Amino acid sequence: MTTAPDTTPEELDAVLERAAAAAPLLAALTPGERAGLLRAVADALDGAADRLVPLAAEEAHYPEARCKGELGRTTFQLRLFAQTLEDGSYLEAAVDPADPEWGTPRPDVRRILVPLGPVVVFGASNFPFAFATAGGDSASALAAGCPVVVKAHPGHPELARATAGVVVDALTGAGAPEGSFALVEGMEAGRLAVTHPLTRAVGFTGSIPGGRALFDLAAARPEPIPFYGELGSVNPVFVTRAAMAARGEQILGGYADSAAMGSGQFCTKPGVVFLPEDADLGALVADFADRAAGPLLNDRVAEGFERGLDALSGHPATEVLVQGRHTGDDWSPSLLRTDLDSLLEHADTLLEECFGPATLVVAYADERRLLEAAGVLRGQLTVTVHGEEDDPVAPALLALGASVAGRVVWNGWPTGVAVTYAMTHGGPYPATTAPLHTSVGTTAIRRFLRPVSFQSVPQSLLPRELRDDNPLGVPRRVNGAAPTV
Amino acid sequence: MTTAPDTTPEELDAVLERAAAAAPLLAALTPGERAGLLRAVADALDGAADRLVPLAAEEAHYPEARCKGELGRTTFQLRLFAQTLEDGSYLEAAVDPADPEWGTPRPDVRRILVPLGPVVVFGASNFPFAFATAGGDSASALAAGCPVVVKAHPGHPELARATAGVVVDALTGAGAPEGSFALVEGMEAGRLAVTHPLTRAVGFTGSIPGGRALFDLAAARPEPIPFYGELGSVNPVFVTRAAMAARGEQILGGYADSAAMGSGQFCTKPGVVFLPEDADLGALVADFADRAAGPLLNDRVAEGFERGLDALSGHPATEVLVQGRHTGDDWSPSLLRTDLDSLLEHADTLLEECFGPATLVVAYADERRLLEAAGVLRGQLTVTVHGEEDDPVAPALLALGASVAGRVVWNGWPTGVAVTYAMTHGGPYPATTAPLHTSVGTTAIRRFLRPVSFQSVPQSLLPRELRDDNPLGVPRRVNGAAPTV
Repeated sequence: MTTAPDTTPEELDAVLERAAAAAPLLAALTPGERAGLLRAVADALDGAADRLVPLAAEEAHYPEARCKGELGRTTFQLRLFAQTLEDGSYLEAAVDPADPEWGTPRPDVRRILVPLGPVVVFGASNFPFAFATAGGDSASALAAGCPVVVKAHPGHPELARATAGVVVDALTGAGAPEGSFALVEGMEAGRLAVTHPLTRAVGFTGSIPGGRALFDLAAARPEPIPFYGELGSVNPVFVTRAAMAARGEQILGGYADSAAMGSGQFCTKPGVVFLPEDADLGALVADFADRAAGPLLNDRVAEGFERGLDALSGHPATEVLVQGRHTGDDWSPSLLRTDLDSLLEHADTLLEECFGPATLVVAYADERRLLEAAGVLRGQLTVTVHGEEDDPVAPALLALGASVAGRVVWNGWPTGVAVTYAMTHGGPYPATTAPLHTSVGTTAIRRFLRPVSFQSVPQSLLPRELRDDNPLGVPRRVNGAAPTV
Repeated sequence: MTTAPDTTPEELDAVLERAAAAAPLLAALTPGERAGLLRAVADALDGAADRLVPLAAEEAHYPEARCKGELGRTTFQLRLFAQTLEDGSYLEAAVDPADPEWGTPRPDVRRILVPLGPVVVFGASNFPFAFATAGGDSASALAAGCPVVVKAHPGHPELARATAGVVVDALTGAGAPEGSFALVEGMEAGRLAVTHPLTRAVGFTGSIPGGRALFDLAAARPEPIPFYGELGSVNPVFVTRAAMAARGEQILGGYADSAAMGSGQFCTKPGVVFLPEDADLGALVADFADRAAGPLLNDRVAEGFERGLDALSGHPATEVLVQGRHTGDDWSPSLLRTDLDSLLEHADTLLEECFGPATLVVAYADERRLLEAAGVLRGQLTVTVHGEEDDPVAPALLALGASVAGRVVWNGWPTGVAVTYAMTHGGPYPATTAPLHTSVGTTAIRRFLRPVSFQSVPQSLLPRELRDDNPLGVPRRVNGAAPTV
């Protein structure tokens, strides 16, 4: 790894001034023109795969196949946002003609969403493509029409620089305004970017302490700005008695695969799994004990994981079923166990996210008492239920899931977040700092847009999307009716 | 005014526990059932007009006719939210069937918006009905399915109690869960309500210092929650040379009416008006000087206004064109003047909101230099442009408006906010603390909802709105296509 000097405050000023200058130009492009920019970036990243994938594999300690798959997800995501722009319904355009019969005085009012302005993005260490430099936050902010300033993740600086180079060249080649995208480096530059007067919003994926510190900076600004942080989640999994009886072996195998995948370094790793206390864990223990050791992302992740694992395994209420083997930087997965009463009593410690290859089985005696977990679970990205359709407890467990999480999974595993129209990757704090939104899927774009209404503005001076002749063919809600083009 | 003891911390706990208990029950009602609750509240408020209107008039020092009109707006708003619920598109329901050909592994994913949980509402002094106990925040939160706890405004405590009584009785009579609505009193109870662990969001309309203090409390919670504050705005008005030449007299008359309306106690009062420096202000000065004095809302507003007016009129860069007359609690409107250079230089002071009957004319020499105001204007609820369609400067002024405000008004006045589908009453800070949203219009409901996605959940266990047979007839976006029922 070569080191580069951190971005200085003066350089950061210049970067944000260029971003602010680019903002109105980027916003003035038609959605279709911005779609072209996103496709150019996607094509360029695909074209640079042979250079980027080895860098990612080296810096994140991942197999090349995984990095290649993740790059594919990243460019798919960019192209899906391009399609979202062309569809146009993301603009939430609405036209209310003047109406003297209305219940309040009603002039002609027309609404559209407009971009917020420069967005600062902090990517994650564990997804060097999909949640990093050209990942979901950057893609959705650019799609919205916001210039993007990425703070390079220190876990993959070479990849960040190489990716940013590809993005900037592609944008420039496709005619994007200068300043639409930039990379800055260094922790202090990141903090200054959050508090910089020209920054209009922040996207962040990372740890609870790191995210909360930046959230606090954003909230304490003289002019607070939206902070979209995806922080932490233990992704509880509930397995009912009936499900365990019907297909216990399959469930435990799936659990081990999901928990150990990528050395447990997923924000959606099933960290806590509720199993009947009489479930036979013999095969599960053997499965965990057999798994190979693998490297963690970087030293900081390794240190944090070791601290978390020590806290869990040293806790008097837990029993270590499988102690992960630790050779150099490589860890094999650990399996721990507690019971429901202990979990409820020591929730603060036992429900803290332990990022890495460790997971906690919670043995329960009374299935109905599982619902008491609702009282101690904080906000989650996901809640999973393994049950049978006629399980008496299943509806209540699904409702519990919906009450604390952004995604409820049935008879599956939370790892793997599909990039689709209906996806939610979000949830109440500390899953995220902005429970109204998702960071994955097409509606992630909504985070970087705000509504503006135009009152009695003549046709010739209205934004194109709001003119009667609708030259861009944007779907619009006219007088509250279902949107039409 | 009778005084009531402040709500104690123990009473507040009980209120929020009842609200939290009501939350899942209220959420489980169909949108149509919740529409029935809102209509019952609207009917009951209309039925209690003879009792409520005189209370409002007495406590807010407004004419009865105005209070009656405002009550009508309030019940219209409740009924419009009822219609929004029946329409169902506010749920943003989406269905993505499983697709093996998709760019990422894609199971069946279905999304719907769900209510956040208990919402605490702080109403405004200047709209004792429409932005208070049963006003827009309460209506939109209830519509979303969130229990509401209103902190009574100390400016109209009797009205708050009477209104809350009507609302609670109507909800109870219509079968709403107990705890769906409650009133608390006292500043300390309000602060505790914002930091209470069971509170999931806050709606606030009021001053910048008061709103910011509560926003800071919400952001500093162990689990931060959304805070929707509508704080302050000077609502700049730009009058071009051409508009002034074409219809100067009419514009100045409209300006005086809008600025003096309701003793200037509107969040949308035109506080700063840019006029050509050679405009003849004689008629405007005479108009202001002739206007009758009227009472302010309460002593606190009067004190704040006097302080603000002193700061403006005592500033070396301003000239007092009309000094408002002050008799007891009654004030007539004041008119001040400065020039564009002074405004740009002393923006911090001269662009501070002065809530009450005072407004500042900014004389400009060079029309093109008006655009420099963009550099000093903070976030606004509204920006107004008076121009001609072929005005060369009009497009840039409208764009300036869209860049800082939630609503851009052409050849009209910002006072008066229509309750419609396309309305935005919001804007960047300090206009609001949440620029993505509006507090007026049907989309105000979005503030109190968050998305939840259901992955691979079988038909019988899905929320009704997401089942294939769509028994409630909710519009849904299937596989990204335009919503259909």
